[in-house]
Amino acid sequence: MTKLKVGMIGGGGGFFGKVHQRAISLDATREVVAGALHQDPALSAKFADEWGVKGYTDYKTMIADWKAGTLELDYVTIVTPNFLHAEQALACINAGLPVLCEKPMCYTVAEAEALKKAVKANKKVPFALSHTYTGHPLMMLARELIKQGKIGTIRKIETYYNQGWLATLAEKTGNQQASWRTDPKKSGISGCGGDIGTHALINALWTTGLGLKSVSALLTAIPGRKLDDDFNVFGKLSNGGTLVLLASQIAIGHKNDNGFRIYGETGSLEWFQENAEELHYYDGTTRVTYFQNAPTGEVPDVLKSYGRIPSGHHEDFLEALANLHTTLERKIRAIKGEKNVPPAYDHPGVDEGVLGMKFLKAAVESSKKKGAWIKL
Amino acid sequence: MTKLKVGMIGGGGGFFGKVHQRAISLDATREVVAGALHQDPALSAKFADEWGVKGYTDYKTMIADWKAGTLELDYVTIVTPNFLHAEQALACINAGLPVLCEKPMCYTVAEAEALKKAVKANKKVPFALSHTYTGHPLMMLARELIKQGKIGTIRKIETYYNQGWLATLAEKTGNQQASWRTDPKKSGISGCGGDIGTHALINALWTTGLGLKSVSALLTAIPGRKLDDDFNVFGKLSNGGTLVLLASQIAIGHKNDNGFRIYGETGSLEWFQENAEELHYYDGTTRVTYFQNAPTGEVPDVLKSYGRIPSGHHEDFLEALANLHTTLERKIRAIKGEKNVPPAYDHPGVDEGVLGMKFLKAAVESSKKKGAWIKL
Amino acid sequence: MTKLKVGMIGGGGGFFGKVHQRAISLDATREVVAGALHQDPALSAKFADEWGVKGYTDYKTMIADWKAGTLELDYVTIVTPNFLHAEQALACINAGLPVLCEKPMCYTVAEAEALKKAVKANKKVPFALSHTYTGHPLMMLARELIKQGKIGTIRKIETYYNQGWLATLAEKTGNQQASWRTDPKKSGISGCGGDIGTHALINALWTTGLGLKSVSALLTAIPGRKLDDDFNVFGKLSNGGTLVLLASQIAIGHKNDNGFRIYGETGSLEWFQENAEELHYYDGTTRVTYFQNAPTGEVPDVLKSYGRIPSGHHEDFLEALANLHTTLERKIRAIKGEKNVPPAYDHPGVDEGVLGMKFLKAAVESSKKKGAWIKL
Amino acid sequence: MTKLKVGMIGGGGGFFGKVHQRAISLDATREVVAGALHQDPALSAKFADEWGVKGYTDYKTMIADWKAGTLELDYVTIVTPNFLHAEQALACINAGLPVLCEKPMCYTVAEAEALKKAVKANKKVPFALSHTYTGHPLMMLARELIKQGKIGTIRKIETYYNQGWLATLAEKTGNQQASWRTDPKKSGISGCGGDIGTHALINALWTTGLGLKSVSALLTAIPGRKLDDDFNVFGKLSNGGTLVLLASQIAIGHKNDNGFRIYGETGSLEWFQENAEELHYYDGTTRVTYFQNAPTGEVPDVLKSYGRIPSGHHEDFLEALANLHTTLERKIRAIKGEKNVPPAYDHPGVDEGVLGMKFLKAAVESSKKKGAWIKL
Repeated sequence: MTKLKVGMIGGGGGFFGKVHQRAISLDATREVVAGALHQDPALSAKFADEWGVKGYTDYKTMIADWKAGTLELDYVTIVTPNFLHAEQALACINAGLPVLCEKPMCYTVAEAEALKKAVKANKKVPFALSHTYTGHPLMMLARELIKQGKIGTIRKIETYYNQGWLATLAEKTGNQQASWRTDPKKSGISGCGGDIGTHALINALWTTGLGLKSVSALLTAIPGRKLDDDFNVFGKLSNGGTLVLLASQIAIGHKNDNGFRIYGETGSLEWFQENAEELHYYDGTTRVTYFQNAPTGEVPDVLKSYGRIPSGHHEDFLEALANLHTTLERKIRAIKGEKNVPPAYDHPGVDEGVLGMKFLKAAVESSKKKGAWIKL
Repeated sequence: MTKLKVGMIGGGGGFFGKVHQRAISLDATREVVAGALHQDPALSAKFADEWGVKGYTDYKTMIADWKAGTLELDYVTIVTPNFLHAEQALACINAGLPVLCEKPMCYTVAEAEALKKAVKANKKVPFALSHTYTGHPLMMLARELIKQGKIGTIRKIETYYNQGWLATLAEKTGNQQASWRTDPKKSGISGCGGDIGTHALINALWTTGLGLKSVSALLTAIPGRKLDDDFNVFGKLSNGGTLVLLASQIAIGHKNDNGFRIYGETGSLEWFQENAEELHYYDGTTRVTYFQNAPTGEVPDVLKSYGRIPSGHHEDFLEALANLHTTLERKIRAIKGEKNVPPAYDHPGVDEGVLGMKFLKAAVESSKKKGAWIKL
Repeated sequence: MTKLKVGMIGGGGGFFGKVHQRAISLDATREVVAGALHQDPALSAKFADEWGVKGYTDYKTMIADWKAGTLELDYVTIVTPNFLHAEQALACINAGLPVLCEKPMCYTVAEAEALKKAVKANKKVPFALSHTYTGHPLMMLARELIKQGKIGTIRKIETYYNQGWLATLAEKTGNQQASWRTDPKKSGISGCGGDIGTHALINALWTTGLGLKSVSALLTAIPGRKLDDDFNVFGKLSNGGTLVLLASQIAIGHKNDNGFRIYGETGSLEWFQENAEELHYYDGTTRVTYFQNAPTGEVPDVLKSYGRIPSGHHEDFLEALANLHTTLERKIRAIKGEKNVPPAYDHPGVDEGVLGMKFLKAAVESSKKKGAWIKL
Repeated sequence: MTKLKVGMIGGGGGFFGKVHQRAISLDATREVVAGALHQDPALSAKFADEWGVKGYTDYKTMIADWKAGTLELDYVTIVTPNFLHAEQALACINAGLPVLCEKPMCYTVAEAEALKKAVKANKKVPFALSHTYTGHPLMMLARELIKQGKIGTIRKIETYYNQGWLATLAEKTGNQQASWRTDPKKSGISGCGGDIGTHALINALWTTGLGLKSVSALLTAIPGRKLDDDFNVFGKLSNGGTLVLLASQIAIGHKNDNGFRIYGETGSLEWFQENAEELHYYDGTTRVTYFQNAPTGEVPDVLKSYGRIPSGHHEDFLEALANLHTTLERKIRAIKGEKNVPPAYDHPGVDEGVLGMKFLKAAVESSKKKGAWIKL
């Protein structure tokens, strides 16, 4: 089997570029071969050398080389700050190059809608959105169990994402990660909401298959910060149920604590990424815990094909992210006409990207209007 | 040492009367000797016989007997449905009889204010409110650590109380506990909020010493129920911080799951009653866990005097409730002039009762007004 | 209902006398009324005064008073150091007075056999052994599930009890609890084994209904201590299965950490007292967790009658101990001919006491003989 | 940076070959380029094609090609059944090709000693043993804290490794993994001990830096199985302390449950791989929990260089295994004279391999001799 060849846009400076490179590499079926890894040409070259890939000073040249047949690429991963996503993703899709894009998908709802239009118009050019947590096998299992009717009609979802690393004004002491995330010019209208709130949202909605009608929000920031670092939202789900979404980056003690509790009429499901290898199901009397890669009749074949190691040997963050690349890889291989490609799961894409942008816009507006309910 | 003698009003029908009797008895320094245990005279007599106490058909006669010197009583515990608390507590206090009253304290804010006035006017007649969870030694320790400045200025509190036992319309199938709790005539304006939301509120505010300025709420009920069974509130704390309070009785899988996370500028504290024997402190790098009754320099003497058994032998729900009785007992013994009475901790009383009533009123109003922020 | 009247022998000096008093009191159906609480007459009087009970300078006089009808007693609780148990228990039983005795039951196997003979000869005089942890409802449920065949034939048991409070020579710095426990004259041939190893043993054997054929042991003590403080045993169960029993009092960080894992041919059960409200059942695929007092079809009625409060309100150490008193109380009330007495569960008694003594003897012998397998 | 090129011996049939390939690939600094993946030539070719590597029908030809300069290799990973390790590793080392070898290192102690001799004689040819769990950053931190004296002299170690997948005779129903592991001809004198007991041993001894003097063991197997599937050992540590090692493959409910508790004179450390991202330190009063990749002054720089992603994004099994490859990679790059190679940590090698073989031999002998203490 030939490895898929991946180009990367951005990712040279922050930690997440290397994370994607590892997620791409770990299955030994994909590899990063080229990259426009940084806006600064010198840095871009330096990083390309370190990574052992072909370096580009800008992503357009990389696409042009691919178009010209001088560079082999199967897809591109975009890991730039939020304000650059739309233009870059659009350029790739329109050129016919599949994309796995970091979230939030864009800077504005308008950009998101434009990208959606392009993606829908290019059916043979898969687009994936990097909602990493949806790659956890037990979140995927939760989604399947809900589809099977295991907990009945959903009444309430509590979804959360708490971190503590912005409890001080880290952006004023040279922390690059903090800098662009707290800068409206690079991140958009919401800081915490855009960075992690959208994860909490998509975790919940993708898992349940529900939509969101309207929100009432309370966003705050510590003195000296422009964008929200604490982001609390009540929402009305498409089925009339309640959404509670809590995200924070000033919650000292939480490192990367996201998860959800989904309450149905006949049972509930609980998952959290600090213990990503377990999924808890409650029927009101006992608790039944499902384990990653453990055999159970309720796991569909498509999910089984995502497991790498036997139960008890945890697959965690990198593997979850790798699963998103696996889904994209399978789609690409199938489109290329390869044989015996396992079926791809339906991970988040452009629809979830648009949803995330609308959600951010409504939440910011609601908070400004003192909690008024705003429709998406 | 002579045991304090306790009279009980209500408690014959529900499970909580026996719970109080056990909390009263377990230290072998207090005992229930009399009770108007039920409104129905026959049942009241039956329960009195079963409990081995002197039975009364109404509480006024019990108070009258005490006044007349034909019944020895040191204090009274009120375990009736909410709408009866105010009148009964007022009668006791005005008669000079100390009270430990179940929460929520009253049916309306006006009643609460009237009771407060009476309590403040009778300094020698202690009044205690049964916020059981504040009796957990590690919640008491959290309060002390916050006073000591351990986590700095508080920015956000998440406090919650989730149960699942009202996920069906249990009140329509003869469940007495469900019946009065879902009946506006007996419970007041809020179901879930009154029953457990006030616990979540007082847990948070009593522990932090903060007040509450205003709230924005989302209350819902499943079809066929009159009072809220899902109760979600954002609030502004007196110091400008954020309160998130989530309570539910339709959250299948949660039995009696309350707790909080308190985020300060320099650290955070986490406690939850499913693991009541531990208190977690986070400084951003490690987690330090304090254990019940374990020796540490940070535990004030007054708290040490509440411990019963060595660390590792958990004291739990009954013991926490017993601690509220212990606090009241110590106040009463001190007022009686007994010697060597250990100092009493300052558990919730009439002020917290008024706060709870105002909170419920504001939350209900906000939810009706689509999340508008309502001042307390 | 009239309260049962309890006399106590010992318990004035250590913490465990008060623990028993609380366990006796908490149901408000029993009370300590008299006690020979200490060997020192002055201290005995002082403690009796503090406890509010009739004081005796020696237990024989207390029994004599009861015989003479000048003191009402329904049973006696023995909380003295180990070397006194046999004589005292024998005196009570022979006098016709039921006993709940602390463990280990005696000082020697010979004493244990003598006591067993007396107990068997006095069928109407119940004798209970204070194996507290067997009073935890979920250990009782584990026993019932095993009886029902839930995990098939048992192949292996791991049972443990770890503490850290004797990691230093506390007995040399005035710690009374440490003093008698590390003194062969008061404790017998084993320190850690006698104090907590027997708990681990009886937890395992009582729950599974299995016997023990032989043991191979490794006992150690830190320099300066006469009796073992670390006690490790391999054993052959009566059905040919393996027992691993680990007990330690130098395991810093463990406070009172006992529990077991029981492996059968078709499943396994896990319980530990740090989380006593849960029982875990594994079938090889998922984990099913049972909760205290939660309704499930697998809980026999006799167990349900031991629950005090709804699921989620944990009953813990004191309540488990109280359950042993409840069992004894029910037996006594039934023998007295009271009506509507709920059935008593079969908690450990004299047989488990003899077993514990034989086990200690064999373990000590094996360790001396360098791990040679010794038959019980 | 150029990727290191890796050859693999074995691994085509079992799951662990792919696991190593992933661990090799995930950092994008190493890649498998060639392999003698199976003894069967047709299967070897098939697997090579699937993996996208150059296939060999036997490992000797692969080494010969490398010697001849027709194949570039930096090191070899050996993933064959135990009885083949010694010959293969010896051939590589003697040819000058570095090796990462699966454990247990050999089939007999004699083989192990011979391999040790060769490794010691070829200082420039690094040899690593695949004790995966020692690659967990928090086990590495435990080792550093012990070196720093954090818990004082070690008195007792409890180390364990429990699985349940051999609770039935899986080897008789076509399970390949079960087949060779339960076959004395392929696995050696011990089944469970060799497969997982040696992990538990090396986890403990490598972390503490202690040796092992002698053991007393109890090994059993279910009817119909030739090699032990339950493996329990008491040991004397080189400093006089106690080792308790428990391993089982019939412990239903355990998937891959290994960990340890290390008790010193002044504190203790606890780690277990089901929660590999936390290390617990106990001082007798509180518990302090260290988190993976979280900043703390106690983490030496060499460990920091092993972290991939920020705290809260768990690195788990594959990453731990990758860390062993990273250590080997760093050694190889340093020997090659590359610049800026971070320092390599000292993961297990040939000494631990010899220790493991001696341990197995002594344990098997002790169990045969009814628990007699056998010197290593």
